Order: sequence, then structure tokens, then C-alpha cells
Amino acid sequence: VDVSYVNPFIRSVVDTFKTMFNQEVTPGKPELKKHPYPTYDVSGIIGLSGDAQGAISLSFPKAVALRVVSEMLGSQVKIIGPEVTDGVGELTNIITGYAKKDLSQYRLSISLPSVVIGREHTLATPKGTPTMLVPLKCPLGEFVMEVSLKTR
Amino acid sequence: VDVSYVNPFIRSVVDTFKTMFNQEVTPGKPELKKHPYPTYDVSGIIGLSGDAQGAISLSFPKAVALRVVSEMLGSQVKIIGPEVTDGVGELTNIITGYAKKDLSQYRLSISLPSVVIGREHTLATPKGTPTMLVPLKCPLGEFVMEVSLKTR
Repeated sequence: VDVSYVNPFIRSVVDTFKTMFNQEVTPGKPELKKHPYPTYDVSGIIGLSGDAQGAISLSFPKAVALRVVSEMLGSQVKIIGPEVTDGVGELTNIITGYAKKDLSQYRLSISLPSVVIGREHTLATPKGTPTMLVPLKCPLGEFVMEVSLKTR
Repeated sequence: VDVSYVNPFIRSVVDTFKTMFNQEVTPGKPELKKHPYPTYDVSGIIGLSGDAQGAISLSFPKAVALRVVSEMLGSQVKIIGPEVTDGVGELTNIITGYAKKDLSQYRLSISLPSVVIGREHTLATPKGTPTMLVPLKCPLGEFVMEVSLKTR
């Protein structure tokens, strides 16, 4: 399976965190997502469609989501509320939009982001499309990106 | 705010449940989603893009998700696992795809579905786009659809 489409998303996370937060993100080795799924507290999800169909998520432990959104807003956010859902949704949107430019062969367009809040939730994409899991680490903490893209 | 775009989604849920499960779905009155958010156990989410951007979700209590997927498969599913994530993802895809036909003015295309599993998770769409919440009831139980669409 060719999963090189994951690379523009990794570059986008690294560049976005550098530009927005002056944070160096170290990506781990992308791997094919398998059961049992890892769990998260806050996830931003965005859909891709066009000449390929996809779904992207950025998932954070609660403490990391709070630190990331505090950086975005320039003020300390202490509770999971609308600032966090708006912030994580916007960040997911920025990262996906930036990656899209390097995938112009698929003429992708992106959906509105959805943000999930729930202690230890899991995410799944229905069978038939591989999901690549990318562990990410920066001084704000560890988080994960998931990338599914079904090319026709 | 014109939220008439919610109607094709309601018709689609009603028609899909009738066709697939011979179940009569009774939709409640759509309302603008406000804090505090309702919570769910299993949610299928799909993104829309094109001349409008959106996100649709179908959210179920655990027991209702198990009953709906058991109907889809024609055999009893007792645990939340891959059958449920595949089933809820596929159902979300079918309902969104069918609604799309009645929204041809937006030239929408749909993303891959994502499925969230997590006890009492909440969903949010970042500010700037209203989300319509539609309560739904059928003999299999109660569930909820959320529809956000940002028309340009």
C-alpha cells in the first residue's frame, strides 16, 4: 500500500507548530493503525473529498490540548470548553489546509472540522481504507495524527 | 439564519431507516445546538465540501448503536467493536450520500466517515457555523443527528 500521502500532513504539522508556536515537533514513525485503538481526550476531525476521500484527526490528551490552545490564544486556558473546541478545530483546519497544497493531484477540498471531547475515546475509520497513525512530540507534550485517504 | 438545508438530511434518515430496517423514524423539532452539549456513546461523523462546507453526525447511546448494527447485519451484535464502527460509519455514509442529492445546488462531495466510540463524549463544531440538532426516535431507540453547513 502506498501511504506516501501521509508525508505532506507530517510536514504540515511540523511547519504549523514552528510558525504558530515556535515549537519543534518530532514526528515518530508512521504506522498502520490496528486494534486495539489508542485513546484520546480531545480530537479534531476533518474530512477530505475530491479525487480522493479521506479523514484526518489530531488527537490530544487533555493536558496537552489545554497547553496547545493556551499557546494559540496567548493566555492560559484551564478548562475544556469552547476555547478548546474552537482552537483544536481551527488547528486541524490549518494543518489540513496546508497539507492539501502538496496533494494537488487529488484536487482535495476540506470539510468543516468536528471536535470530540470525551475521556479516553477511540476513533475508527470503517474498513477498506488504511489509517496511518503518526505519533508526534513537542515541548507542549505528545499527541497523535491519524490520516486516512482512499485514492481511486 | 436559513437552516432549510437540514430537511434533506431528515428525509434521508427517515427513508434510509424505512428502506434498510423497515423502521419508522419520528423526527423531533430541529433546534440550534447550544451549550451544554448532549453526550453520546457512539458517533459517526462525515465531512461535506464543495460550494458549501459541512459536517454531519449521527450519535447513538451504546444500546441503540448495538441494536441498529444488529439490524444492519441481520445478527445480534453484543459488544462495541469493529462491526459497530463499520456499521455506524456505513450508515452515516449512506444517509449523507442520499441527502446530498437534494442539495445539488452546493455541488457537495463527502469525506470518509470517522466513528467515535467513547462513553458520554460530546461533539462540537467551531464557532461561526450554526449546528442544527435533530432528535430522532424509532422502535430501536432514540438517537440524534447534527448538521452543520456553511454556505458561502
